Amino acid sequence: MNSILILGCGLLGSSLLRKIKYKKLAKKVFVFEKSKRNLKKIKSLKLPCEIVKKPEDAVHKSKLIIFCTPMSQYKNLILKINKFLTPSHIITDIGSSKMSSSKIIKKNLKKNIFWTSSHPIAGSEVSGPEHGTRDLFNNKWCILIKEKKSNVKHIKFLEFFWKKIGAKTVLMNAKKHDKIFSMTSHLPHLIAYNLVKSAQDFEKRQKYNLIKFSAGGLRDFSRIAASNEVMWRDIFFDNGVNVSKAIDLFIKNLNHFKKDIHRKNNNSILKKLTQTKKVRSKILKLKQDINRPDFGRN
Amino acid sequence: MNSILILGCGLLGSSLLRKIKYKKLAKKVFVFEKSKRNLKKIKSLKLPCEIVKKPEDAVHKSKLIIFCTPMSQYKNLILKINKFLTPSHIITDIGSSKMSSSKIIKKNLKKNIFWTSSHPIAGSEVSGPEHGTRDLFNNKWCILIKEKKSNVKHIKFLEFFWKKIGAKTVLMNAKKHDKIFSMTSHLPHLIAYNLVKSAQDFEKRQKYNLIKFSAGGLRDFSRIAASNEVMWRDIFFDNGVNVSKAIDLFIKNLNHFKKDIHRKNNNSILKKLTQTKKVRSKILKLKQDINRPDFGRN
Repeated sequence: MNSILILGCGLLGSSLLRKIKYKKLAKKVFVFEKSKRNLKKIKSLKLPCEIVKKPEDAVHKSKLIIFCTPMSQYKNLILKINKFLTPSHIITDIGSSKMSSSKIIKKNLKKNIFWTSSHPIAGSEVSGPEHGTRDLFNNKWCILIKEKKSNVKHIKFLEFFWKKIGAKTVLMNAKKHDKIFSMTSHLPHLIAYNLVKSAQDFEKRQKYNLIKFSAGGLRDFSRIAASNEVMWRDIFFDNGVNVSKAIDLFIKNLNHFKKDIHRKNNNSILKKLTQTKKVRSKILKLKQDINRPDFGRN
Repeated sequence: MNSILILGCGLLGSSLLRKIKYKKLAKKVFVFEKSKRNLKKIKSLKLPCEIVKKPEDAVHKSKLIIFCTPMSQYKNLILKINKFLTPSHIITDIGSSKMSSSKIIKKNLKKNIFWTSSHPIAGSEVSGPEHGTRDLFNNKWCILIKEKKSNVKHIKFLEFFWKKIGAKTVLMNAKKHDKIFSMTSHLPHLIAYNLVKSAQDFEKRQKYNLIKFSAGGLRDFSRIAASNEVMWRDIFFDNGVNVSKAIDLFIKNLNHFKKDIHRKNNNSILKKLTQTKKVRSKILKLKQDINRPDFGRN
């Protein structure tokens, strides 16, 4: 391919950029990034790209356009590039939720232009182009959203593209995607944020130093709770309905567990604690996590 | 010291055993272990100890006795060794909660015998002597419980002992201990178990394969939710009052967060997500976790 345009060059965008250049998937990669901090990093790291001041400047030269910004920036960017888009442009994004964002896209994108959404299950608690790595997507799942009106050619192209990037692809509609990830990703993040918040509240009230003793479990949650706040606000808002349902299911289980403790319901608790253990084994079997105790930290 | 008796030789007990022998802290270590599976492992690993069939057999020969079993076994073991105990025995345990267990100890332990409780903040999601390592306690905090009636000599002895084992010691009363760890350890574990349970419930209802896409966050929780079920049942029961209060505080925060999502309360959510990030920085500054993105997994 001649050229690719990456909009937003943080952790994910810069990782894509690195891999695209490493695999020689495009002669040139244009990058639009509005954060001055990130721009400075991109320059000092000498990332192999051509920075454009306006996103629209690179659209007509690019075959593939990849949105790597927080989802709340999509609308603005679409309005800027709209008149330069043609039906042959392959447009994708890497956003973590799909239903609401697809409505915004549909509402704002010029007619007869296709948008084929992607979601690579890759990321980290750190942000910014300095943390990107070309191996970020290796062996990770990348969901490609397929609806009745999807452009099959563009899907095929993106399947090929993500495989070159190192990911494994799977097709899914937006509704199913958002349900699954409300449980496997959005709820865990929301819980992590709220557990850390609860610890902070408790610390203020009791005047105890909790952080010193965080190695008992809290530190694990603190990693996820350190993730990018703008990105996660967008996800919680975007997938609000599914996330709220997931919260309700979770609170229901918490309340049952509290009752079990109160009643010293030995059988019920042991059954629950034994059942959940099986999930870890499945995750390790499917190579979704490193098979070393304590993530191999110690 | 001549001899030490370790009661229960799983992950923690066997790690202690390894370090005691490595540092030559005792000429002999007696081990009592009731699980046949663990006994087999101890023998096949040729761990440097003398296995005793009855705990009482080694009591009179041992200066230090360390309870490394789940807390629900304390009573039984105390009743077995009681008549062989003398006031010069130094007795400790490594249990994760202290208030209720101290009542059981007080009720059952022979008069004029001292019990000086320890809690090393070390462990893992795996169990059994085959997973123990002599470095498990290195640079970890070990809480020593100090009350008005504590034997100061025994505390001093245990401070010295745990430092030799590699840990850093800190004194605290049982009440404060149980409050702090209800938040930094017991609530995180309970949440992890219940998140995984919620994912299982959801999977059954929706017939989706969630595990495949667990890398978005769920896999982190699944590690903690794979911890030993008997040990954790005991902790939840033992520290039930504090744990229940922690659950209530957490549910309160979850419900507020849900409202914020519903009302798209941008400022409130961004403030929360930014605040919690600071905790991660503090944890890393205090070297309570590995300072590498994603725990250095990828």
